[in-house]
Amino acid sequence: MKAIQTFFVMVLFSGFSFAQNTPSVHLMPWPQTIEIAKGHLKIDKDLHIVIPENSSDRVQHAATQFLRNLTNKTGVFIKNGFPLNNTNTTNSRIVIQYKRIGKLEIYEDESYEISFQNKQINVQATTDLGALHALETLLQLVNNNTDYFYFQAATIKDQPRFTWRGLMLDVARHFQPVGVIKRNLRGMASVKMNVFHWHLTDDQGFRIESKLYPKLHTLGSDGLYYTQAQIKDIVSYADNLGILVIPEIDIPGHATAFLTAYPELASKKQDYSIERNSGIFDPTLNPINPKTYEVLDGLFSEIAPLFTGKYFHIGGDENEGKHWDENKLIQEFKQKNGIDTNHDLQTYFNIKIEKILAKYGKKVMGWEEIMTPTMPTSALIHSWKGVNEGKKPLGSLIEAAKKGYQTVLSNGFYIDLMQPVQEHYAVNPLPSHLDLTSEERKRVLGAEATMWSELATPLTIDSRIWPRTAAIAERFWSAEDKQDLQHLQERLPYISKQLEQLGLTHESYKNVIFRNITASENILPLQVLSRVCEPLKIYTRNKGGTEYQTYSPFTLFADACTPDAKDGLLFQGDVEMYLKNPTDKNKETILNWLQKWQDNHLALKKLPKNPLLNNLLPLSENLAALSEITQHKLTGKAVDQHKIQQLLTTAAKDIQDVELTLIRSFEKLLQ
Amino acid sequence: MKAIQTFFVMVLFSGFSFAQNTPSVHLMPWPQTIEIAKGHLKIDKDLHIVIPENSSDRVQHAATQFLRNLTNKTGVFIKNGFPLNNTNTTNSRIVIQYKRIGKLEIYEDESYEISFQNKQINVQATTDLGALHALETLLQLVNNNTDYFYFQAATIKDQPRFTWRGLMLDVARHFQPVGVIKRNLRGMASVKMNVFHWHLTDDQGFRIESKLYPKLHTLGSDGLYYTQAQIKDIVSYADNLGILVIPEIDIPGHATAFLTAYPELASKKQDYSIERNSGIFDPTLNPINPKTYEVLDGLFSEIAPLFTGKYFHIGGDENEGKHWDENKLIQEFKQKNGIDTNHDLQTYFNIKIEKILAKYGKKVMGWEEIMTPTMPTSALIHSWKGVNEGKKPLGSLIEAAKKGYQTVLSNGFYIDLMQPVQEHYAVNPLPSHLDLTSEERKRVLGAEATMWSELATPLTIDSRIWPRTAAIAERFWSAEDKQDLQHLQERLPYISKQLEQLGLTHESYKNVIFRNITASENILPLQVLSRVCEPLKIYTRNKGGTEYQTYSPFTLFADACTPDAKDGLLFQGDVEMYLKNPTDKNKETILNWLQKWQDNHLALKKLPKNPLLNNLLPLSENLAALSEITQHKLTGKAVDQHKIQQLLTTAAKDIQDVELTLIRSFEKLLQ
Repeated sequence: MKAIQTFFVMVLFSGFSFAQNTPSVHLMPWPQTIEIAKGHLKIDKDLHIVIPENSSDRVQHAATQFLRNLTNKTGVFIKNGFPLNNTNTTNSRIVIQYKRIGKLEIYEDESYEISFQNKQINVQATTDLGALHALETLLQLVNNNTDYFYFQAATIKDQPRFTWRGLMLDVARHFQPVGVIKRNLRGMASVKMNVFHWHLTDDQGFRIESKLYPKLHTLGSDGLYYTQAQIKDIVSYADNLGILVIPEIDIPGHATAFLTAYPELASKKQDYSIERNSGIFDPTLNPINPKTYEVLDGLFSEIAPLFTGKYFHIGGDENEGKHWDENKLIQEFKQKNGIDTNHDLQTYFNIKIEKILAKYGKKVMGWEEIMTPTMPTSALIHSWKGVNEGKKPLGSLIEAAKKGYQTVLSNGFYIDLMQPVQEHYAVNPLPSHLDLTSEERKRVLGAEATMWSELATPLTIDSRIWPRTAAIAERFWSAEDKQDLQHLQERLPYISKQLEQLGLTHESYKNVIFRNITASENILPLQVLSRVCEPLKIYTRNKGGTEYQTYSPFTLFADACTPDAKDGLLFQGDVEMYLKNPTDKNKETILNWLQKWQDNHLALKKLPKNPLLNNLLPLSENLAALSEITQHKLTGKAVDQHKIQQLLTTAAKDIQDVELTLIRSFEKLLQ
Repeated sequence: MKAIQTFFVMVLFSGFSFAQNTPSVHLMPWPQTIEIAKGHLKIDKDLHIVIPENSSDRVQHAATQFLRNLTNKTGVFIKNGFPLNNTNTTNSRIVIQYKRIGKLEIYEDESYEISFQNKQINVQATTDLGALHALETLLQLVNNNTDYFYFQAATIKDQPRFTWRGLMLDVARHFQPVGVIKRNLRGMASVKMNVFHWHLTDDQGFRIESKLYPKLHTLGSDGLYYTQAQIKDIVSYADNLGILVIPEIDIPGHATAFLTAYPELASKKQDYSIERNSGIFDPTLNPINPKTYEVLDGLFSEIAPLFTGKYFHIGGDENEGKHWDENKLIQEFKQKNGIDTNHDLQTYFNIKIEKILAKYGKKVMGWEEIMTPTMPTSALIHSWKGVNEGKKPLGSLIEAAKKGYQTVLSNGFYIDLMQPVQEHYAVNPLPSHLDLTSEERKRVLGAEATMWSELATPLTIDSRIWPRTAAIAERFWSAEDKQDLQHLQERLPYISKQLEQLGLTHESYKNVIFRNITASENILPLQVLSRVCEPLKIYTRNKGGTEYQTYSPFTLFADACTPDAKDGLLFQGDVEMYLKNPTDKNKETILNWLQKWQDNHLALKKLPKNPLLNNLLPLSENLAALSEITQHKLTGKAVDQHKIQQLLTTAAKDIQDVELTLIRSFEKLLQ
């Protein structure tokens, strides 16, 4: 095979407005600096990867996995299926160098550089963590022409904006098996996230094995928990991907499952059983019972060593202290000890917990409620409240930083709320205009996307996380001024497909649900309909937390719908284009959509009827009716304004827990 | 909600020719006796399931899982998400009763009975294993009308034909993570299979952790192995599903990975490294080295207790003894000890192994090569050779039974060979016409489907196993005379969808590959093409075992194709119909197909070109050209006979490791 010469014409990109004919690269997160060149390195069977002798497990694993991903993506039968330690051939190669093994700690050096030189790609990094990031970037640089695949030549110097780039996963509301965790860790690594915050306990489940207090997982989990061996396996798997795992044991509230196992530790004497609904519940550990601390001490003595990092998340959120108010002994204790409020009592509790954890070498991290006047600044404050909770965005984050706490932001990154990607992308965890000293700024470690799982099962959870979290990962890694929405939207489909190739199921699961609904292969009408439907947003699905129980069906049409419904976005663009420039061609585009949705309704109605399908007919009918009347209006037929209003009102209603995303576009056309 | 009366009109089915208007039931395996009635039990939110107090873990788990599957399948918000121990309501309910906990041993009672009585379904079984089977049957009895879902009323008395109904999975050639194993165990349980034979070691990998000899898994597995904790987890998961797990450590041949860790145990002094190709290799343990037995004894002392069953599979296959012949000391040993052949030497080895395993309470099971004249009849003989290996089908099975060995059949059930389902369905492990005594017949315990994984990865393996293994499971469970192919084909799509709902990915993985190939959402042309393509059969893919290495790409078009290509079968039926009855309507059906494939080729050509797609164009072009010339012939246009022959010859060639399944149908049309 003849060698392809690589040659380099550097094109420096300021911002992201690509010149025409510039090779397109679909990197996410976007690097701090990148100079794209015109050359490339062809991917052929002789391509190999060279890593230092005695490389870290991380690099060994990452380089091997890189080769698997590369061969699977390109179909090229690469001869060397494993990294080599040296070569003296003239074949194409990738050479990895790094200086030391990185620690999964804050402020570790994760930088890397990539350069192209003849038939060689050089990767240089201070730590092996940087080398891992470089390999992810290289995989995203794979492109093709009609004849072969290649790495797009570029010079990249990159490093993260924030040292803490996390994803929180709630495995309490719905248990997520080891395989689900692992594939999401792979996804995280591919977009350079480095903290996995594992929300292990809540009212609906205590999901970690305790050998000292086995009632916790046997009575508190319905049999759905991680063994300590599984925990260790995941921590080590994550470490190999450069990801630190932070456990969360949520106390003293969110404790129903805990108290189902140990009712004697409760603040109120009553029957406890695992919670099946969603919401905020009253069961709370008793902070004046010495046994509470004895059990927690034992528990933490087991759990702490399973995790390699310094931080241990104790939750601490949403304890309204109702059961404390109802408990006479607790009231007496408060009075006797000069504890005025329940907040102060919780701080009393937290400080005792902090001391226990310190024994096991851990630092306390907690949701922002733990930040009370007497809480030591050694704690890490997890900022989560915002407009939905009647607070100012970034409020507690700024407060924490000013008061001397390290802090991490999650407000704005609640991906379970089913909001469009641009909402999250727009959230800046540390705007440069903020009035903070450089020391205070340094305390803002970064941010975490949070995936609460009241409505997400192993089947659907990937789709609730991806691909939006890739955009969030960019917000956590890339420069503050990386804000171009169009460039984001251009790259997202590529990244989404790459995530799928890594094993995430956020695309493929949909047809599984559709085939269940139609009980057949004929799912096209549902696919078409789903592309203009989104699940209800921001706590409007599952109102009051009691419409769904943890064991309710999550294989409904709404579960197969995702934010950023594709055709919804396309139609919106086409409508804007048409209204700006009402040419015949642009009108034709609109009319095609309208016809498509009417035809789709006919197709849907023709499917063999069944209860699951019947539920969806009104949704499809609303869309078809709106399409028809809009078609009439655009083609100059008489339309009844009253009817239009009626149709718009009807179509705006929630049906089967989804909303049609087209209403505003229709309104614009029908004005 | 108004109660729906159930009423019963018994219809006894002899065979499977359903009377018109008979409710259709899609059971697989088909029960030994079933009387379908006209009534049904409506599935509403009040439906609940009652199990005995202090039920076994198995029943507790199965009943809970049944409720999850039921709610996910129907979308009904069932109020009681967990089984109850008693009720005195008049609501619909399923009542489970069984007499004792079953043992996962041969000849255990797995029978069950289902009957419908007013608003109650009664399940009765001797053991909890029977109760589990009943619940799987009930889930398959779910049906619907346009308004609601229901259980079709029926009286069923059922029990297995064979006590050993297995699936062997090779995790050595390609490692399969825990999640893959678990979802396949769920699939097995759903079709009442009860033995999981785990092929843990081979030339390409030693996949089980050894604490005594850690080099085995560290040097022999590329880091891809099961920890002992994971093994225990899977054994217990399987037990909960009523499935016995049999480990296989393949010795003395198939030992390259073993000898990579311990070259000092080899019969030949040479360098050993994990094998990357497929085939039969020479590396063999040294049967005259005492250290061999010392290591195996240690290894078995660790492994045996991880598995609860009595049988331990030692492989024993395909040792051609080349390295024994090359070893002078072994030759001397043979002479000195009067061991004439390598077969006898292997028996010498096997008998020593049998004694070691006996210490740990295990009985030897091995591939048919272990059946030599001096092998004790306590061993279980696994019959696998057949026509491909120059042997008579059932040959070694009959021989084993006659010689006093228990035996299990796998010949005819090699599902990795990509043969159509009917090939396997036609194999009868114990035809009633065989000249065997009843004692000999009893020694034929049953059979196992075998899934070798040279060409199967976690992405594709489900599609290599399912849904064909459901039909094989019926062969293992149902009556010998259950042979109606049409009835099989009627039910298989339902069962396949049910398997998908249980978590198997044999349908959903295809689009993952197609999206990789087109690098877009536009995959319809590939879907259409794949429905008439099948992967090459019976060792014709990967000729010589060296076209693919274990790290080659397995995300190719061939990997997205499966046996029994759907449109291939439909077209075949339509062609037969047309040739029998050449009406205009039947001709029209054929012409529609032909037009479809020509249009599809145009669509495929319009996709943005890339190397992966380019490879497929000749395949699609052949189909389009054949379609066009056939269209011409059917519509009375002039056609060139020479051209026809040329096109048929070209189209019959393998392209990209797939074959067009339509050639014979085209030949018939073009005659």
